[in-house]
Amino acid sequence: MSEGNKSCNKQILLAARPVGFPKESDFNLVESPIPAPGDGEVLVRVVYLSVDPYMRGRMSDAPSYAAPVGIGEVMTGGTVSRVVESRNPKFQAGDYVDGQFGWQQYAVSSGKGLRKLDPALAPLSTALGVLGMPGLTAYFGLLDVCQPKAGETVVVSGAAGAVGSMVGQIARIQGCRTVGIAGGDDKIRWLVDELGFDAAFNYKTDTNYRAKLKELCPDGIDVYFDNVGGAITDAVISLINLRARISICGQISQYNNEKLEMGPRFLSQLLIKRSRVEGFLIMDYAARFREGLVAMAQWLGESKLKYREQFEDGIENAPRAFLSMLRGGNIGKQLVRVSAE
Amino acid sequence: MSEGNKSCNKQILLAARPVGFPKESDFNLVESPIPAPGDGEVLVRVVYLSVDPYMRGRMSDAPSYAAPVGIGEVMTGGTVSRVVESRNPKFQAGDYVDGQFGWQQYAVSSGKGLRKLDPALAPLSTALGVLGMPGLTAYFGLLDVCQPKAGETVVVSGAAGAVGSMVGQIARIQGCRTVGIAGGDDKIRWLVDELGFDAAFNYKTDTNYRAKLKELCPDGIDVYFDNVGGAITDAVISLINLRARISICGQISQYNNEKLEMGPRFLSQLLIKRSRVEGFLIMDYAARFREGLVAMAQWLGESKLKYREQFEDGIENAPRAFLSMLRGGNIGKQLVRVSAE
Repeated sequence: MSEGNKSCNKQILLAARPVGFPKESDFNLVESPIPAPGDGEVLVRVVYLSVDPYMRGRMSDAPSYAAPVGIGEVMTGGTVSRVVESRNPKFQAGDYVDGQFGWQQYAVSSGKGLRKLDPALAPLSTALGVLGMPGLTAYFGLLDVCQPKAGETVVVSGAAGAVGSMVGQIARIQGCRTVGIAGGDDKIRWLVDELGFDAAFNYKTDTNYRAKLKELCPDGIDVYFDNVGGAITDAVISLINLRARISICGQISQYNNEKLEMGPRFLSQLLIKRSRVEGFLIMDYAARFREGLVAMAQWLGESKLKYREQFEDGIENAPRAFLSMLRGGNIGKQLVRVSAE
Repeated sequence: MSEGNKSCNKQILLAARPVGFPKESDFNLVESPIPAPGDGEVLVRVVYLSVDPYMRGRMSDAPSYAAPVGIGEVMTGGTVSRVVESRNPKFQAGDYVDGQFGWQQYAVSSGKGLRKLDPALAPLSTALGVLGMPGLTAYFGLLDVCQPKAGETVVVSGAAGAVGSMVGQIARIQGCRTVGIAGGDDKIRWLVDELGFDAAFNYKTDTNYRAKLKELCPDGIDVYFDNVGGAITDAVISLINLRARISICGQISQYNNEKLEMGPRFLSQLLIKRSRVEGFLIMDYAARFREGLVAMAQWLGESKLKYREQFEDGIENAPRAFLSMLRGGNIGKQLVRVSAE
């Protein structure tokens, strides 16, 4: 972990729009002067940076729900930071804040949109995981979009990721049978032995997804929380029950395709099963974040939710952490420790 | 139109499960004795038989929402019939009833599930169209599943069929921009010139569906009512707006496929657009049929809804009428006139 040269701000810029799977050369490490806060502003030092699948979309200029990062701009990303200098009466030096400062060591902010964090309440890094965007994504994407009922079978893909691991645990709390799909035996063991998933399988070794799902979901599939897409999702959809609910949170298997992949048409299946597929975006739930955070914090306090974090040290290693996460190298939440707390 | 031999009941049986597109030889015309009503039963003479796309599913033993018609069984279907003899106090000879008597000239019923029709209120045949299952399908599938708002753009495929033609008109009543897709210039003229669709195109001649839809839907697509599936639906989905709602009523382009067709994956598009696709079945709305019929009858009375019917005469021609409908040979509702009213 490097604190860097105190007078310089290491930043990771987007150097090129990736073609297919991104490469380290799509990023560029530069050193800029540390900015000075103006009147009403704060200067922060980034402590933790979150790397997430959605960032692949921001690297592309294909139409999406958010504007892309421009070439030569600092990569965007959620961060936990410490206020170094404050010229804003709402903040003091030493405060920890949750904000969107991106892939860099220092940033200046008007304070707008910043949320103060109390390190005594929960580890600071959880603001980027179980008590942050991934946790809220799991909470609303499962409970609000899919409305699972006790006794139903819930399948989640990308189950060992920051979002998927929470989805399965929230489903279990609701009294559902919870089945996870992930890529690695270590991930499967974690899901079943530590997080309490009823079942899980490694899609890299159990490649007949449909047969495996049939075995693990003897009563069919009522709810599917999809982080992945592609052939895994095809198999799940072929096994849905009447009035199944499918929430599309991510499609990580498709993000690096240069053109639309073909897959079996499934709208007849949706019709026969009177089922629903819905894409959602966590920012649409902003007005209800407090509700989600209160519930997640309570379950965490009751030890009904467990989480795992994986750290890469140093902002210069953010591209490596991001690429590793895109390849499924993480168990739980992948973070970059940019500086010491 | 044949009244048939008075002592015999001509019936169309399912002779074979179709492979690909059904053929006349998949049906078998037989003559049975006219059944005698027992105590509490009625004997009816079928007047109108409805032929509908869903019947293709009943000919197949692939898993679906309803059991298939067995080989050698009478084909199922909605009918308007006249009571010939009643041993049930709720019915009198001469009553007209709406019921599910299938592809035959006569049938016996306990009276359960029969709905009496008043020929003074509306033409009897409308009980199989605008004031029957197709009208209700349009009503609930559009208003309940898609919740269109004034000013939104609604696209409907299979727009000149019994359901699609009602969907477009109901959308227009809601103040939506209404765009239809159908197969034939005569259909397009009917939709635009007589039914008041804002625009429509012939997918058989305008084969760049996406370009045409872009031209006809300059503000994008908010609601899609899908009767067809396949490449038409691919093009629509590529043009949806944020929070679009898609209801899957039918997938007629897919019903005769021997295996699942491949198409471009669109779940990333649903995600980016936070949109929803939902299959529905009109029978799930049975408890609300009265609400739908009251609304449809009122709009019909106010001349806000227009409809068109096409008749084939004689039960022996039911297979031909059905196959013609599957090929898109009908404008509006395809019926078989089995006997005179």
